[in-house]
Amino acid sequence: MLVVQKYGGTSLGDLERIRNVAKRIISYRERNDSLVVVVSAMAGETDRLLSLAKSITKSPDERELDVLLTTGEQVSSALLAITLKSMYCEAISLQGHQIKIITDSTHTKARIIEVETEKITAELNKGKVVIVSGFQGVDKKGDLTTLGRGGSDTTAVALAAALKADICEIYTDVDGVYTADPNVCPRARRLDAITYDEMLEMASLGAKVLQLRSVELAKRYNVPILVKSSFVDGPGTLVCKEVTKVAMEKVMISGVTYNKNEAKITISRVPDRPGIAAKIFTALADANIVVDIIVQNVSKGSFTDITYTVSRADAKKAHKITEEVAKEIGAESVILDENIAKVSIVGSGMMSHYGVAAKMFSTLAAEGINIEAITTSEIKISCVIEEKYAELAVQALHKAFGLDSEDVEEEKLCS
Amino acid sequence: MLVVQKYGGTSLGDLERIRNVAKRIISYRERNDSLVVVVSAMAGETDRLLSLAKSITKSPDERELDVLLTTGEQVSSALLAITLKSMYCEAISLQGHQIKIITDSTHTKARIIEVETEKITAELNKGKVVIVSGFQGVDKKGDLTTLGRGGSDTTAVALAAALKADICEIYTDVDGVYTADPNVCPRARRLDAITYDEMLEMASLGAKVLQLRSVELAKRYNVPILVKSSFVDGPGTLVCKEVTKVAMEKVMISGVTYNKNEAKITISRVPDRPGIAAKIFTALADANIVVDIIVQNVSKGSFTDITYTVSRADAKKAHKITEEVAKEIGAESVILDENIAKVSIVGSGMMSHYGVAAKMFSTLAAEGINIEAITTSEIKISCVIEEKYAELAVQALHKAFGLDSEDVEEEKLCS
Repeated sequence: MLVVQKYGGTSLGDLERIRNVAKRIISYRERNDSLVVVVSAMAGETDRLLSLAKSITKSPDERELDVLLTTGEQVSSALLAITLKSMYCEAISLQGHQIKIITDSTHTKARIIEVETEKITAELNKGKVVIVSGFQGVDKKGDLTTLGRGGSDTTAVALAAALKADICEIYTDVDGVYTADPNVCPRARRLDAITYDEMLEMASLGAKVLQLRSVELAKRYNVPILVKSSFVDGPGTLVCKEVTKVAMEKVMISGVTYNKNEAKITISRVPDRPGIAAKIFTALADANIVVDIIVQNVSKGSFTDITYTVSRADAKKAHKITEEVAKEIGAESVILDENIAKVSIVGSGMMSHYGVAAKMFSTLAAEGINIEAITTSEIKISCVIEEKYAELAVQALHKAFGLDSEDVEEEKLCS
Repeated sequence: MLVVQKYGGTSLGDLERIRNVAKRIISYRERNDSLVVVVSAMAGETDRLLSLAKSITKSPDERELDVLLTTGEQVSSALLAITLKSMYCEAISLQGHQIKIITDSTHTKARIIEVETEKITAELNKGKVVIVSGFQGVDKKGDLTTLGRGGSDTTAVALAAALKADICEIYTDVDGVYTADPNVCPRARRLDAITYDEMLEMASLGAKVLQLRSVELAKRYNVPILVKSSFVDGPGTLVCKEVTKVAMEKVMISGVTYNKNEAKITISRVPDRPGIAAKIFTALADANIVVDIIVQNVSKGSFTDITYTVSRADAKKAHKITEEVAKEIGAESVILDENIAKVSIVGSGMMSHYGVAAKMFSTLAAEGINIEAITTSEIKISCVIEEKYAELAVQALHKAFGLDSEDVEEEKLCS
């Protein structure tokens, strides 16, 4: 079996933990699996490097930032290889530029274009464990690039896809994907399995377990991902194409998530002409700003309002760009609101159920929470609310949709 | 003018110091010099990484050690580039594998085979300051390599040679090359100039200013090196082909050095046959051990004694290998002595002077220091002595050869 494993920063937090990772790798080798291991930077290292750069200047050059940040994973890969070799397990570290993992040139959030497999396959054939530095690649000019926060997940899935691996195991500090953030919702349960689409909605909404892009990639190439804890043995959560829910048939949603890392920008009295929305969002795209929710209200006469959300890191930049476009197109005003949260319910089951949206809205209303914007997809409903209500909203929705752990036990007994 | 500058770890010890380096670079750019800047790892970083690896295992895999260690210079290069760009000076960092600086595959002490200049020249032509990570290269397989301690000096000189630079400036924490280690000999003086050959003898004997190999390389390609302080303005010391000494005509030696980092191995009663010495030193060379002094005493009948010195890091390994060879060739015993020091006087002037050696031996004798081995070259005489006498020997020789600062002042007045 060919297994791609990925270890996050906490799993590699110190030499003792690296040794534990090495032991697990050796146990896989003992049952003759071929192993490609993707590593993140040791916990805290990326932040340390980033804060060094930020104390030089607020906006460090992005090409050079990538040169700086890629060292974190390089250190991890070398330390793990040294550890494995000291335990008599043949291993070799490979960096993104050695493999090569070719990306575009969008520094600090590059996208993988192609993964060459020759070098990895050659080392696997020699019986070696191949350790790959995650998060990094190289563009066509030979410049070092990084894939953005959580990019090591994407590296792992891209390798699993390119190598046609049997499974991609993601080791992290949680033991799987939960119905909600256990810190916010103590009755949250671990899911045994979840579909790519559900996970995509979960991840983009802040479930913090897997990088969104890694799940997109896994879906495209049908790579099964198993999310497991580095520290506790357990079955983990399998992320795959289809999940057969037997005992949970009645549970129409898989999880409740929230995201406090967004900001809302509203453009008032936009002239309601074709091409205006395109103008705004092209300007944002040109600045490499990713827009999340977009809501355009029903037109009032020849004017309309447009609201969108972006990550808070991009908020000021997006605000400025939008103000410029607003002036140009003759909109009235642009308002930035950073005190928002997005609360969402996710589940493939909701398509075949009536009244899910109504239940969500009435649950929030019962808690006195005002809804500022709504978007829906086939498997997700999201509401933008005031930031301070985020936790309360998650708890109320988790309970209302029967996800609290006791409720589920009962349902299982009944079915 | 095309200038290659190299900054050592102390010069880049923190962000404030990196900013000072950036300011100096900008002052060079303002007078329209083209600049290639070679950087070491920030002070303490290489040791930190090394001790991480050593706390995993006593002998970490050397290929992976190089992967680990090269991150130190990569971080420096990125931080300096970020600093320069934040000060509106166009700059770009390049790693050894990007340039490429091609080396052999002797990990942890690789030798440069070839330096490609296309990429650097292209960036210089765009008006950029090119920042190069020192100490590192890439072998023909694409594996990362390092050049050994002080390797950044060699990177700088190799680049200066390949680019046909006008000068190679080495910025360090001392303001030049001294007649002796000022910590040991308070009356040591800075030399304005020194020849490659003298410097080679000084460096190999522990003058600690420049890596030996960088001087060899500079000599081969006739690259003038200017050693200067990063912290104090001053003329520094020029290392070049020939030095015209006017006021100092009478001073026949340029410096007194010592080295406590060696160990002495003596093989007793070696059968005095052709090919025996070759056998011993081939075995050491095969293990990549560099031998310094070799002394073979006059034959006693059909037997002889052979003594050699190696760095203490290699001593145990060398001892073991020599014991194996000794058994094979029927020598009597192999004795390892780690409590030695080598004290040397160096100077191109000594060739034309009588009695230099005699003066050295009598000076040591007057201090009650026993000489355990002697070697001489055209511009150097070295004595192996007991370790504890090293400082005393340096001070006595420095005085005896008229190098103490007051003495020189007087000579200058007289001439």
